[in-house]
Amino acid sequence: MATRRRADTRARLLEAAAEVFVERGFGATSVEQVCEAAGFTRGAFYSNFSSLDELLLALVAQRHAAVVAGLGAALEQIEPAPVEDLTAFVGEIVRAHLADRRWQVLQTELALHALRHPAVAEQVAEHRADLRRRVGELIAHAAGRAGRSLTVGPEELARAVLALVEGTRFQTYLDPAATRTDRLLLTAVLEQYTRAAGPDGPAVRR
Amino acid sequence: MATRRRADTRARLLEAAAEVFVERGFGATSVEQVCEAAGFTRGAFYSNFSSLDELLLALVAQRHAAVVAGLGAALEQIEPAPVEDLTAFVGEIVRAHLADRRWQVLQTELALHALRHPAVAEQVAEHRADLRRRVGELIAHAAGRAGRSLTVGPEELARAVLALVEGTRFQTYLDPAATRTDRLLLTAVLEQYTRAAGPDGPAVRR
Repeated sequence: MATRRRADTRARLLEAAAEVFVERGFGATSVEQVCEAAGFTRGAFYSNFSSLDELLLALVAQRHAAVVAGLGAALEQIEPAPVEDLTAFVGEIVRAHLADRRWQVLQTELALHALRHPAVAEQVAEHRADLRRRVGELIAHAAGRAGRSLTVGPEELARAVLALVEGTRFQTYLDPAATRTDRLLLTAVLEQYTRAAGPDGPAVRR
Repeated sequence: MATRRRADTRARLLEAAAEVFVERGFGATSVEQVCEAAGFTRGAFYSNFSSLDELLLALVAQRHAAVVAGLGAALEQIEPAPVEDLTAFVGEIVRAHLADRRWQVLQTELALHALRHPAVAEQVAEHRADLRRRVGELIAHAAGRAGRSLTVGPEELARAVLALVEGTRFQTYLDPAATRTDRLLLTAVLEQYTRAAGPDGPAVRR
């Protein structure tokens, strides 16, 4: 029971902290404010986390685990089905798993924090390597179902897709009227980084 | 003399604020801290800016003006010269004018702030429209010197280039080991968004 209650306390602290970080910004948030939002004492906080830094990294780990689980499920589902429009398919996966607004805010806060603290950046890099591996697998599978093969490694393609997704989301913060750049960019990258499979396909364009 | 001193005070406040924002984060910075860093009183601050928000927007305006002036100068310089490698050329311009680390941090702080305050986002959007117009002009000119014509409008291409530059910079914060994704992406986008000019060029690929 004690273990269960402890897990609940930790989950509530993570949830409350995410809300306060999104609302106020990570840099402007104190341990006290997180405790107040979660309805706990400072003692409850410090029996679960040594600092807000550690809590932020726990949020990243939690989020990446959820994304990876979701991608794993998506991978299984596409096995039997053909993929008619690779851009639409990848775009849908990206939107479903990566384009959540609250997560985008947290991720941006995290990027700033990592920029100021290299040790944080190092830990984040490990989580992201795993995410990139799964995203790469998913896109390689989807390309195969669409009759295309990759002209670069799956992780490199995943890195490009993540960069453009993060870039277009970032741009949307700064210009809410931004149109569908993400779709055009995704088409450009997928066309450049894949080719029609089989003997009739065009030569690798690189 | 009073006007000159006032301009100096304003410039020193902007400079000091940029440093404090980069160091501590915009959300964790107070007017007092900016005054202390600049060596001024609160009175000096409030005779120049009504709030830190207004100061942040003034920093954006100042930075965009510098970038636009730099792009204007670059435009004039390329007029007589041929461009042999369009990706290298655009990449160089981007790095020279947009990839400054301190500005990237400030821009990320700004994006978070704009996300929380739609009125700020609206003002930023106006500055960015001007930047996009100049970047589009520059790339269209460079493409022409490289014997290629655009298959989309120059502002749309500029939006794509800005999105991928911002995305790859953002990714580099989160994963310092990130390789040269920007160059590969830039090649993909420029190949997709331009075509060889003249009657022997391939059909528009869209």
